[in-house]
Amino acid sequence: MNGKPTDSAKDKPWGGRFSESTDAFVEEFTASINFDKRLYKHDIQGSRAHAQMLGKVGLLNTNEVEQILSGLDAIEHLADNNQLEWKVSLEDVHMNVEARLTDRIGIAGKKLHTGRSRNDQVATDVRLWLRDQVDGISHELRRLQRALIDLAEREADTILPGFTHLQVAQPITFGHHMLAWFEMLQRDFERLQDCRKRINVMPLGAAALAGTTYPIDREYTAQLLGFERPARNSLDAVSDRDFAIEFTSAASLIMMHLSRFSEELVLWTSAQFDFIRLPDRFCTGSSIMPQKKNPDVPELVRGKSGRVFGHLIALLTLMKGQPLAYNKDNQEDKEPLFDTVDTLLGSLRAFADMMPHVQPKADKMRQSAMKGFSTATDLADYLVRKGLPFRDAHEVVGKAVALGVETGRDLSEMHLEELQSFAAIITADVFEVLTLEGSVAARDHLGGTAPAQVKRQVLAARELLG
Amino acid sequence: MNGKPTDSAKDKPWGGRFSESTDAFVEEFTASINFDKRLYKHDIQGSRAHAQMLGKVGLLNTNEVEQILSGLDAIEHLADNNQLEWKVSLEDVHMNVEARLTDRIGIAGKKLHTGRSRNDQVATDVRLWLRDQVDGISHELRRLQRALIDLAEREADTILPGFTHLQVAQPITFGHHMLAWFEMLQRDFERLQDCRKRINVMPLGAAALAGTTYPIDREYTAQLLGFERPARNSLDAVSDRDFAIEFTSAASLIMMHLSRFSEELVLWTSAQFDFIRLPDRFCTGSSIMPQKKNPDVPELVRGKSGRVFGHLIALLTLMKGQPLAYNKDNQEDKEPLFDTVDTLLGSLRAFADMMPHVQPKADKMRQSAMKGFSTATDLADYLVRKGLPFRDAHEVVGKAVALGVETGRDLSEMHLEELQSFAAIITADVFEVLTLEGSVAARDHLGGTAPAQVKRQVLAARELLG
Amino acid sequence: MNGKPTDSAKDKPWGGRFSESTDAFVEEFTASINFDKRLYKHDIQGSRAHAQMLGKVGLLNTNEVEQILSGLDAIEHLADNNQLEWKVSLEDVHMNVEARLTDRIGIAGKKLHTGRSRNDQVATDVRLWLRDQVDGISHELRRLQRALIDLAEREADTILPGFTHLQVAQPITFGHHMLAWFEMLQRDFERLQDCRKRINVMPLGAAALAGTTYPIDREYTAQLLGFERPARNSLDAVSDRDFAIEFTSAASLIMMHLSRFSEELVLWTSAQFDFIRLPDRFCTGSSIMPQKKNPDVPELVRGKSGRVFGHLIALLTLMKGQPLAYNKDNQEDKEPLFDTVDTLLGSLRAFADMMPHVQPKADKMRQSAMKGFSTATDLADYLVRKGLPFRDAHEVVGKAVALGVETGRDLSEMHLEELQSFAAIITADVFEVLTLEGSVAARDHLGGTAPAQVKRQVLAARELLG
Amino acid sequence: MNGKPTDSAKDKPWGGRFSESTDAFVEEFTASINFDKRLYKHDIQGSRAHAQMLGKVGLLNTNEVEQILSGLDAIEHLADNNQLEWKVSLEDVHMNVEARLTDRIGIAGKKLHTGRSRNDQVATDVRLWLRDQVDGISHELRRLQRALIDLAEREADTILPGFTHLQVAQPITFGHHMLAWFEMLQRDFERLQDCRKRINVMPLGAAALAGTTYPIDREYTAQLLGFERPARNSLDAVSDRDFAIEFTSAASLIMMHLSRFSEELVLWTSAQFDFIRLPDRFCTGSSIMPQKKNPDVPELVRGKSGRVFGHLIALLTLMKGQPLAYNKDNQEDKEPLFDTVDTLLGSLRAFADMMPHVQPKADKMRQSAMKGFSTATDLADYLVRKGLPFRDAHEVVGKAVALGVETGRDLSEMHLEELQSFAAIITADVFEVLTLEGSVAARDHLGGTAPAQVKRQVLAARELLG
Repeated sequence: MNGKPTDSAKDKPWGGRFSESTDAFVEEFTASINFDKRLYKHDIQGSRAHAQMLGKVGLLNTNEVEQILSGLDAIEHLADNNQLEWKVSLEDVHMNVEARLTDRIGIAGKKLHTGRSRNDQVATDVRLWLRDQVDGISHELRRLQRALIDLAEREADTILPGFTHLQVAQPITFGHHMLAWFEMLQRDFERLQDCRKRINVMPLGAAALAGTTYPIDREYTAQLLGFERPARNSLDAVSDRDFAIEFTSAASLIMMHLSRFSEELVLWTSAQFDFIRLPDRFCTGSSIMPQKKNPDVPELVRGKSGRVFGHLIALLTLMKGQPLAYNKDNQEDKEPLFDTVDTLLGSLRAFADMMPHVQPKADKMRQSAMKGFSTATDLADYLVRKGLPFRDAHEVVGKAVALGVETGRDLSEMHLEELQSFAAIITADVFEVLTLEGSVAARDHLGGTAPAQVKRQVLAARELLG
Repeated sequence: MNGKPTDSAKDKPWGGRFSESTDAFVEEFTASINFDKRLYKHDIQGSRAHAQMLGKVGLLNTNEVEQILSGLDAIEHLADNNQLEWKVSLEDVHMNVEARLTDRIGIAGKKLHTGRSRNDQVATDVRLWLRDQVDGISHELRRLQRALIDLAEREADTILPGFTHLQVAQPITFGHHMLAWFEMLQRDFERLQDCRKRINVMPLGAAALAGTTYPIDREYTAQLLGFERPARNSLDAVSDRDFAIEFTSAASLIMMHLSRFSEELVLWTSAQFDFIRLPDRFCTGSSIMPQKKNPDVPELVRGKSGRVFGHLIALLTLMKGQPLAYNKDNQEDKEPLFDTVDTLLGSLRAFADMMPHVQPKADKMRQSAMKGFSTATDLADYLVRKGLPFRDAHEVVGKAVALGVETGRDLSEMHLEELQSFAAIITADVFEVLTLEGSVAARDHLGGTAPAQVKRQVLAARELLG
Repeated sequence: MNGKPTDSAKDKPWGGRFSESTDAFVEEFTASINFDKRLYKHDIQGSRAHAQMLGKVGLLNTNEVEQILSGLDAIEHLADNNQLEWKVSLEDVHMNVEARLTDRIGIAGKKLHTGRSRNDQVATDVRLWLRDQVDGISHELRRLQRALIDLAEREADTILPGFTHLQVAQPITFGHHMLAWFEMLQRDFERLQDCRKRINVMPLGAAALAGTTYPIDREYTAQLLGFERPARNSLDAVSDRDFAIEFTSAASLIMMHLSRFSEELVLWTSAQFDFIRLPDRFCTGSSIMPQKKNPDVPELVRGKSGRVFGHLIALLTLMKGQPLAYNKDNQEDKEPLFDTVDTLLGSLRAFADMMPHVQPKADKMRQSAMKGFSTATDLADYLVRKGLPFRDAHEVVGKAVALGVETGRDLSEMHLEELQSFAAIITADVFEVLTLEGSVAARDHLGGTAPAQVKRQVLAARELLG
Repeated sequence: MNGKPTDSAKDKPWGGRFSESTDAFVEEFTASINFDKRLYKHDIQGSRAHAQMLGKVGLLNTNEVEQILSGLDAIEHLADNNQLEWKVSLEDVHMNVEARLTDRIGIAGKKLHTGRSRNDQVATDVRLWLRDQVDGISHELRRLQRALIDLAEREADTILPGFTHLQVAQPITFGHHMLAWFEMLQRDFERLQDCRKRINVMPLGAAALAGTTYPIDREYTAQLLGFERPARNSLDAVSDRDFAIEFTSAASLIMMHLSRFSEELVLWTSAQFDFIRLPDRFCTGSSIMPQKKNPDVPELVRGKSGRVFGHLIALLTLMKGQPLAYNKDNQEDKEPLFDTVDTLLGSLRAFADMMPHVQPKADKMRQSAMKGFSTATDLADYLVRKGLPFRDAHEVVGKAVALGVETGRDLSEMHLEELQSFAAIITADVFEVLTLEGSVAARDHLGGTAPAQVKRQVLAARELLG
């Protein structure tokens, strides 16, 4: 059952001191090429800048730089067209690209690795890649936010029951509800931008761990690659994966939000709530129950949240006890990060595609809001305005509700005399505050559910998005 | 950016009531075929038994059963040879297999789904698959345990310092240390067997959630598939993923153990400890530092532990708030589970391959054990035997150690008079208890580090493994 | 801001070689007495057995053993009555008990620690304590299971809609639903018993890490303490916390189950579902909305699940990279474990108290089951029995449902001619299979939802519980 | 075993509609007062501002406002002196404070709750409290950073081996190593400040979920409380716990960093490394091994990291599937958050106290750096400067190292002729680059380990801290 030694040690960039080839299974087990080949474009991008810098400081001559650049172009072209064979014996994307380069251009290729190490190289690649992903994710976030604003505007006056404890609490507007989701995503967007600052720092030049003896110009490389600045400490530069963890934390929050939205969408599409309609194309059916139309997309997104939480734990655990500087453990940073990005992008895209087509069922929601004494607080507030302390008003209304439960009627369906039996100060104007429209319109302050406020917030939200 | 509706709804097994095709991106996003195709052999295994049962109870005639069985054989053969095209439009492995079957054998294929649903089918597939994996993992566990026993036997007398708080504590034997690892794996093995009992229960027959109206014979199907019994409640059967979580918990413990072993191997191969030699073929080098020989395998395994912990969290989170019965969220159970199995099998295999070739450096370990006053406890015990209460003896030795620290000498290097200045009852026989050999040999009771005990435990361990 | 050195080093059981007192803040930060005092009864229990064993093998004389036993009794009595002052300067429960013992009985007290260390002592204490907790938890599990069986029996015929994807799927019986929960708890119970086997192994005698030089009799101590056997390896014995992790895994599964039950109870008490009534005493109200009656207990239990998952991660992370044998990190095992037990016991007790008082609203549930074409599968099965292949039958019913959606009618409300327009083979007997009662009664096999099966399962469940 | 109904429902602020008292156990189980009393100062702070705002907009008269303010002062004073009895029957800190206030000042106390709910009140309290904690934590972070800068300055020239894969890689300076830690903490500091922006937003005015019908002035309250702005959406305001999760993520990263530092400190204090000395007062001893001096503080901090990761998972899980707006689950946000803050503050404080007293052992570190061919990369770089391509130079040095391993000599201990046998271009000046001092001095660029760079970074770091 033992893997057999392979010939491949000859190919290895570090074979010099070794007397024995790598075990074939070990080679497979320790290689990263199967997943890190995904970074090839950013690896090549980093190598281009590194070569240009080496040219600038005189460690490569112009001819060598040109050979390297055109060699890298050719390799990228091959890879873009799936014509590059990725070899496990070359361990990772870096050695695969470099070996191929040396095959093509000879000795200049061997010089490219001057003044750098795979330790700083991979850290640079991942940051370049993640920076791009953050931008892509931010774009999808914005697209979803815009869909929510549009929906909020369209449904600023639509009334549904607001819930606490999943019990009907007070009437709210559908637009207001959509803007609550908007706010969550706005925090997510801002959090991602804060995270991006810390991603956008360049490890290159840290070499293996201590810097290099060559007269490199890190500011120049950073500028070429669009990094804000070079990392200030080489030991930290090669071992730091904070940016990946911080990103995965931010991603976990986004997935948590999408899971909360999903929970609501699933509830709302149930026959019992029946608040909205999802278009068929975002649903699937059952292989056995012919009547089923399942809200697959929200269910699946809800299910995917755990996956990202898991990746967060994987990354924290990974780093927890590592002494400085680079350890092989770090190779395990990529798969959780890649899958986090894929999961997040897919989920956001699905939501951004779906939300514009959600159809609220105004009648059903209104009907639901009529149940559950949703204007009881309005009655209490009415009593306070008539002079009762809030706590006493609360108690009076509690008794009226108890009568309602007993007799199966809403407060608005009681006679004036009945209401007056609980508090003599009630007069006929009470019925205005007991309507759904009266209730939502009355919450007319910054952050309140009144249609007027929703419209104001829609404008403010559009402005925020620019 | 919106995905476009596709033609594929026609292919869907549930298209009847839908007026609109599935969005192409949604189709891709919600399909599971890209990962669940891995289950095809177990899906076919389940279908075979289901068909036979349908035949037994008369829902299929003999001819139909035969057609189905030979059709499934043909499909399995194709899939084994990578000649089956898996279609995303058919969503999952179940529909891919069934559609292909119907293509081949016509109407009998359409009858195969009688009395089952994808809900109970997928639960059955995963259980069959996982049962096989547990057996494979148990095999690797045993292989590693055997390697440890061999090593323990070979090195029963080899002395190294035992650590607590990574400070030298007392001398121990290398064999004893290996048997500590053996014990951890033994618990892991037993835990897996306990888990296997709960995996080995058959959901099939639960249909979508409530059972079926056909006169199925679940005991017969269970018997054909080697399940211990059919699940007792259909709602539970389709929604239960406890077995996957319990397995991932057990896997987390195994990975935690391997991570602890790894931590020690990494320490032991450092120049500062230098306790063992790992063969070159389990190590790799550096692209920049020509002298490096890195213990990649243990580092990587240590790094992989977080990954499995993350999957455990993913699965717990997945199930946490789901009402009964099946929800689409459950589709997310597979990838964490698959990756847990792959990670665990790879890590165990790497260790089982590597451990027989670990070479302890007895001299270096002995030398290390001489440092750090590792026999101080023996001196205290000596004093207790001479009549001092333990707490007082502890204090006396503490003072002798303080002198040792000050003068750079071990207790065994002090003069008798010096030792007597701390406690007059000390006599010349004290130097016997201050040797490393004396120290380990004295811990001669069940579980103790004495070579005699190690040898006894080696025999007991072999017996345990049968 | 620095803490000041304290006088307390004099009290320390290890002060001998130290030249400097412990920093006051450090003393507080590193002490465990504030939480491990909770173990005092089990610490004393372990000390009693240890003293008896020391007596048996002649390391203590009869008088000393008696002094120790009566001294421990007195200390336990004090602690039981909150009259024992727990001192931070004495670090932990072990030293607090021992110091107090020595204060009372003098030199014999100092001898109690012969042949053991705090490392094996604390491991023993925690196992003794946890074994008791597992028994308490098992008792509550059984109590809750009994409540579910009673409910299942009472409501074996009560019909509600079964859901998949929170869409009405097929009619099921309330009793059947309760038995699904029963099954989950049954697995939980069995898992706890399996875990208990691995808890019930005795570390005592492992001493610091390597065993002891005294002629101890571990089998005897194990017998006195009711342990199944002594641990087989001293290094493993002092460093193993698998049992705590395995327990917390099992606890996570239980909490996950309770969270699922809670999700359903919360849904069922919503005005939209309105399937059950929870007694007032398990609910609370709102400080502002007088009409609210919130299902606090299930919400809170659902919320508490994350807490236990978190403790599981805490414990796995804790152990992940620790070399053998004992490290101070291990002190962090207690608080997550204690809180896991408290959370689990409280949640189970709340459920076991509440479930007997849940009142199903049969009318509302029935009404809900009438919606959503819950008998569509029955129609498909009917067509299969009439000779259509299942997949074709599925498609026919899909079209009938589409008409139903369009015209707002259930399948049972259509005319025979209408149904026949989809499949000519339909005859008048179709209406029998379209009733709710007919539907559930037809699923009459092991695990099916038919009332007859529920009653059978109730009997089997009672038998299982003994 | 059932808890008994209590009389306390009369005390409840929501008793009106209830016909039955709360079960005594349920009351205990659902109450939060045992832990949320910790928020009393911030609850009172929020109430003060709320009262002033109610006064400003005319909902309270001047006299009422004054009564409330002085009543709150008196209650705070009592609580500060542990003279306030916290009642479980009053559920939480809010009702305890308010009930006490009403006891003292009568009807005005009952008016305080006008225009707010416990839902927005608790969210406000937690944010006020956490804002303070973030400031306290930032202070400790800065204190620790300063200690590291001082150490870096003092030890800018001290050489130790730099490790990758825990194998000696290249010589580095101790100051450089300390600055790597500084960088991690700097990111932590910045991350906390980013998080603080999102904490510092005011929920108050959101009332139960929809806003209030009273003409409140949220901008004014926000100003009084030092919030940057009121929350823009009431549904979001009462249900958002992102700030707690983001904080716990940031805390997890800090703890991960401290765990990494700890791992190194534990290694460095081992007899095998022996790089530093920790003062006795940050260590403890053993109850059985008189010679032990254990690095308890770093071990414990390393162990505490898992605890905070666990809390992060607890909070993410908590929120994951909650529909809007407030659910009782949210009550579970406090304990993980409180313990995160306590753990983080304690760990930072212990490190900030300890680090100034860490004593590097320059001789031992130097000696260690001499082992392991730490200047091999320098030789390769030397060859590159002499014209060899890097990859070829790497191979040459690999062979020289193999000779060194075989003959037990460092590269600097070989004869010139020996070195020349590997590459003829080597000349006598090679020995300069093979010294430790030459090696570190040569890495003299931004981020490199050269003493000159360390000194420059020390200045920059001081400037950053202001």
